[in-house]
Amino acid sequence: MVDAVVRPHTPAKSRHTPAGGAPTAPHTAAEAHEARIDQALVNDMLLGTWAATRREARELIKDPLFWRVDGMSMEEHRERALQAMHVLVDNNGSRRAFPEEYGGLGDNGANIAGFEEVVLADPSIQIKSGVQWGLFGSAIYQLGTKPHHDAWLRDVISLALPGAFAMTEIGHGSDVAAIGTTATYDADAEEFVINTPFRAATKEFLGNAGLHGRAATVFAQLITGGVNYGVHCFFVPIRDESGADLPGITTEDDGVKGGLNGIDNGRITFDHVRIPRTNLLNRYGDVAADGSYSSDIPSPGRRFFTMLGALVQGRVSLDGASTTASALALTIAITYANQRRQFDSGAGTPEVVLLDYARHQRRLLPRLAQTYAQAFAHDELLRTFDGVFSGRTDTPDERENLETLAAALKPLSTWHALDTIQESREACGGAGFIAENRFVGLHQDLDIYVTFEGDNNILLQLVGKRLLSDYAKQFKGKDAAALARFAVGQTAGKVFHGAGLRQLGQAVGDLGSTARSVERGLRADQQHELLAGRVQQMVADIAARLRPASKLSPAEAAAVFNENQSELIEAARAHGELLQWEAFTDAITSVTDPGTREVLTWLRDLFGLSLVEKHLAWHLINGRLSTQRAAAVSSYIDRLLTRLRPHAQDLVDAWGFEPEHVRAPIATGAETARQEEARAYYAALAASGEAPVSEKSLKKH
Amino acid sequence: MVDAVVRPHTPAKSRHTPAGGAPTAPHTAAEAHEARIDQALVNDMLLGTWAATRREARELIKDPLFWRVDGMSMEEHRERALQAMHVLVDNNGSRRAFPEEYGGLGDNGANIAGFEEVVLADPSIQIKSGVQWGLFGSAIYQLGTKPHHDAWLRDVISLALPGAFAMTEIGHGSDVAAIGTTATYDADAEEFVINTPFRAATKEFLGNAGLHGRAATVFAQLITGGVNYGVHCFFVPIRDESGADLPGITTEDDGVKGGLNGIDNGRITFDHVRIPRTNLLNRYGDVAADGSYSSDIPSPGRRFFTMLGALVQGRVSLDGASTTASALALTIAITYANQRRQFDSGAGTPEVVLLDYARHQRRLLPRLAQTYAQAFAHDELLRTFDGVFSGRTDTPDERENLETLAAALKPLSTWHALDTIQESREACGGAGFIAENRFVGLHQDLDIYVTFEGDNNILLQLVGKRLLSDYAKQFKGKDAAALARFAVGQTAGKVFHGAGLRQLGQAVGDLGSTARSVERGLRADQQHELLAGRVQQMVADIAARLRPASKLSPAEAAAVFNENQSELIEAARAHGELLQWEAFTDAITSVTDPGTREVLTWLRDLFGLSLVEKHLAWHLINGRLSTQRAAAVSSYIDRLLTRLRPHAQDLVDAWGFEPEHVRAPIATGAETARQEEARAYYAALAASGEAPVSEKSLKKH
Repeated sequence: MVDAVVRPHTPAKSRHTPAGGAPTAPHTAAEAHEARIDQALVNDMLLGTWAATRREARELIKDPLFWRVDGMSMEEHRERALQAMHVLVDNNGSRRAFPEEYGGLGDNGANIAGFEEVVLADPSIQIKSGVQWGLFGSAIYQLGTKPHHDAWLRDVISLALPGAFAMTEIGHGSDVAAIGTTATYDADAEEFVINTPFRAATKEFLGNAGLHGRAATVFAQLITGGVNYGVHCFFVPIRDESGADLPGITTEDDGVKGGLNGIDNGRITFDHVRIPRTNLLNRYGDVAADGSYSSDIPSPGRRFFTMLGALVQGRVSLDGASTTASALALTIAITYANQRRQFDSGAGTPEVVLLDYARHQRRLLPRLAQTYAQAFAHDELLRTFDGVFSGRTDTPDERENLETLAAALKPLSTWHALDTIQESREACGGAGFIAENRFVGLHQDLDIYVTFEGDNNILLQLVGKRLLSDYAKQFKGKDAAALARFAVGQTAGKVFHGAGLRQLGQAVGDLGSTARSVERGLRADQQHELLAGRVQQMVADIAARLRPASKLSPAEAAAVFNENQSELIEAARAHGELLQWEAFTDAITSVTDPGTREVLTWLRDLFGLSLVEKHLAWHLINGRLSTQRAAAVSSYIDRLLTRLRPHAQDLVDAWGFEPEHVRAPIATGAETARQEEARAYYAALAASGEAPVSEKSLKKH
Repeated sequence: MVDAVVRPHTPAKSRHTPAGGAPTAPHTAAEAHEARIDQALVNDMLLGTWAATRREARELIKDPLFWRVDGMSMEEHRERALQAMHVLVDNNGSRRAFPEEYGGLGDNGANIAGFEEVVLADPSIQIKSGVQWGLFGSAIYQLGTKPHHDAWLRDVISLALPGAFAMTEIGHGSDVAAIGTTATYDADAEEFVINTPFRAATKEFLGNAGLHGRAATVFAQLITGGVNYGVHCFFVPIRDESGADLPGITTEDDGVKGGLNGIDNGRITFDHVRIPRTNLLNRYGDVAADGSYSSDIPSPGRRFFTMLGALVQGRVSLDGASTTASALALTIAITYANQRRQFDSGAGTPEVVLLDYARHQRRLLPRLAQTYAQAFAHDELLRTFDGVFSGRTDTPDERENLETLAAALKPLSTWHALDTIQESREACGGAGFIAENRFVGLHQDLDIYVTFEGDNNILLQLVGKRLLSDYAKQFKGKDAAALARFAVGQTAGKVFHGAGLRQLGQAVGDLGSTARSVERGLRADQQHELLAGRVQQMVADIAARLRPASKLSPAEAAAVFNENQSELIEAARAHGELLQWEAFTDAITSVTDPGTREVLTWLRDLFGLSLVEKHLAWHLINGRLSTQRAAAVSSYIDRLLTRLRPHAQDLVDAWGFEPEHVRAPIATGAETARQEEARAYYAALAASGEAPVSEKSLKKH
């Protein structure tokens, strides 16, 4: 703010033309390099397997009806979101996930891809759609059977039957197994009695429950014949045609939230509400008329996880939507940073373009690199999802892998979105705080992505447990001596390698050409060794510390686990970062265009080295990097930033957002126009001979 | 989310009572330790020098009129904020900063302290008050002279004259010296002509400009006799009694912002608006009737900085308000984390209280430690401010020190607030996203604190330059050999020590007793050595890299500086962290109560070691910590977390927030009441003999 000298308004010629010195760096690829990305090619890569659906969705949401209106009241926003969903219905938006016999299109991957793009218009519409078709509709489709499909799916798709997904309770969010709502079977009436036995068991934070929902898929403890068979899902009508609560149902409105106020979140309590026996969504467990329970999955634990796993698509779609939102924020911030000037460099040159400042590059470009990595990792996740849900690769192993992948990627990308949107908003100063420039609305709406559909910390802990369990499998049947030798030696690499949870792609390609990586820096294979080695070592270390727990009392073992909780979560994060890095690297191997390949390799290197820098202390302490090499990591990054700077605009433009998607006035070129107007003013003033001289120049005489 | 096994609803006795195992950790100081803080004493320490004013302000804002109403329209919120300001006026809230002859109280420190507390009620009121009395009123008072005070100060204080502070322009925010608005003196008319020569020179983002302001203090290039004397401030009426723009004035509304929507931010353009010559606020520079310019400060640069420095109070107050807001967020999150239970530990014990999870402790307690450090550092900043503005210590050196201190502390505390509010919101899951629980509103409102009143990165760069200049002063008059010896040897410690920008307090006390610090950990003196050594080394390293720049062309020198920009900002941040650590340590030395001293020393250690952990790679690369000691830092932190966990509630309660300040339903004890209701239900069910058995227990038979 006060980082300036008093400068005269000298004529434009001398102030705004380089006086002997070059500008800090080239601003465009054209100025800088022969290497340049092929934007159309990169756009295809970023849009991925379901590019056509994404383009179709982007075309549809050019209609201003879909755009978030800042400052709109909660009530208006809710009606607007509902109205937009009807337009989605009219344009096939709701049909993709459902089978053809009910008017669906049976294309799971496309369904997710299409909805993810809606985040560009208004995240409330994305998430309200997710509630209706991804949760409420999916529960009926995935957990129900033909009679349920016949009865409700058409109305779900057409929005004739808006519904809520009633899983979370006030008292239990992440710990679904412990919910308190009961569904007790009454064999005489052939009915289930749905009941909320105490306030903590109230269903809470449910989209569509505040206002629009007519029914809900309700998760409750299934009790029949005096036995609790655990959590099952039931179809329960909640409101009549006039919108009034049905007998025994009490709904309440959650009121204003931090964002997503186009969604009517609310609470539901059930006071001994009776539903027909056949309203149990009985794909994985059923109750006969006489009250006897049956299931194809004998293990209660596995049955529970199977039911929950059928609903993984929420997490998958948050990973993609967060990545798209991050790309949008960076598009706005980098476009502005390439136009906006502030302070001269003291070298007599024009005021410096923001993106020429080293600090500004540090703030934005590594986040762009991660956003690219996420896009590639997400497409692989989406293909895995589509494989399982289309039935092509629907095995228990693949389902488990899919769930673990989603649990590893969703936390990283949703946190990245908040971080990136915030940094972008700050990088645009006061203008970034004005709602019309998009950042603040995106941050408000995406805030909840980090804790819903699975709290990020809990998801990472789940991944960490999977890593530990994969690790432990290595030792099955091996003798204790080998185990002990391992635990002492800590040379986990080879033992672990086979089991490494490497789900994305098959194998990392050729790791990029050495020549195209940073000279004298850390080449791709070295980046991979550092990133993968860290995951392996962390898991091995934690496993070694947990091993004595098997000999402890349950309470003591719990305490030992708790002592390692934070590091286990960090190991899971490291695993997710590795997956993203590998996906980026795999994506590059398919590129034949030399300019694209070169620039994307720099960007991948920036991502990899930023990860190494972030965890530099770990690599030093564990002897993976010498002090000297560690000290060089930051300067490698600086060098990459200088290289990538002229390509920054190309790299955000490659996302292909159109003006109707961006909408932010600061990213329209208005800033450049204003600067040109100011320059013209000063030039005319100078030409007129009436320009004031500066006090300072006066004193020199 | 799926991190659970299916559990039967076994009777309360066996589920909710420790079965052989102890709970993970004591939950209260009473359970855990003889050591316990004296809450009243710590409350006095936290409220600091102007505790009485803070308590008075807190009492006043218990009136719900002051509370932020979530979901209120922008229009209503603006009227409400204005109304609240009138109530402040009626309760002396606006008088503290102004001299007694105009109805003021002449108490600068108290003024800031009082306003900071208003953040608890509604940050819009805090900032709108800051605009009216801290910026608009302050400009008249600090930059004007007696005729200006006589004419306007009473109406400023009474809010009869609401005003805007028109410094920032669309084209120039941080670089105030380059603004485009002109104030050209017309000697014939004895008037200044205020003009906006092009769109980029439009005054932008001004509070009170959108709607309520009747006048503005306008910063413009003062031109008289064909000479530009640089930026000066002018009093310019902008609206008539009916609220219509005066001739030549065009105001526009900035519309919806990310937060602070109780403030009517807007734009102003001037089309050759004429004001009397005497409307120049002429304390530091004046124009006589004949157009001749005079100033007590001959250097244009020093004059500019003196005028800007007179307005430092905005930064000072943001430091304090951000700290208070962080404390509020942690009070809510820690209170909830001490009640909320989720997942059992697998040890047959009751579900685990969130704050017993190691991860949860890691998320919240280090942030609490930093918030304490900030409170102590802020009180020292406020005393420095009061000394200068009361005239007691008003020397150029002290003014410069004050500005540098504010520039070092404001960035750290405003970023900390956003980080802490966000982590707290996430730590409360979905409930944290509901507006009534406060986090989301606080984040929205405080978002802009990191870029207004000086962008955080630019402020830190300013501090970095001051560090470099202090450093360079060491070498004045020394011979070149000594300089070269230094540059080679890098043993900066001794050479630099005398000049270290150590502004808070006088000297760090006895650094706490070794016995009270972490055994086998890093004692206070070692923490200090690491933190201070890092600042010194970073500055010395950057200075060494910049030294050749004196022999380069301006453009090349600018490029070298740019290469070091990011690290210079990091050095300034390290300096701010050191100041906070030292303030915390100084505060402890005054404590005689043994329990308080012990617990606060742990908390200070947690702050210090968290800083060391954050910069661990630097300490390793620079040989300040051996690999072995570095590896131990995290486990020292874990040990401190275990120690502090039972004191967490005491430590947030010591801030002394009352229910009218906290307001969040999740921090009221409602969660505990719901759990007790649920437990009672399960107990009654078990006693009735009608509790269902679990499927799992069935299979065992």
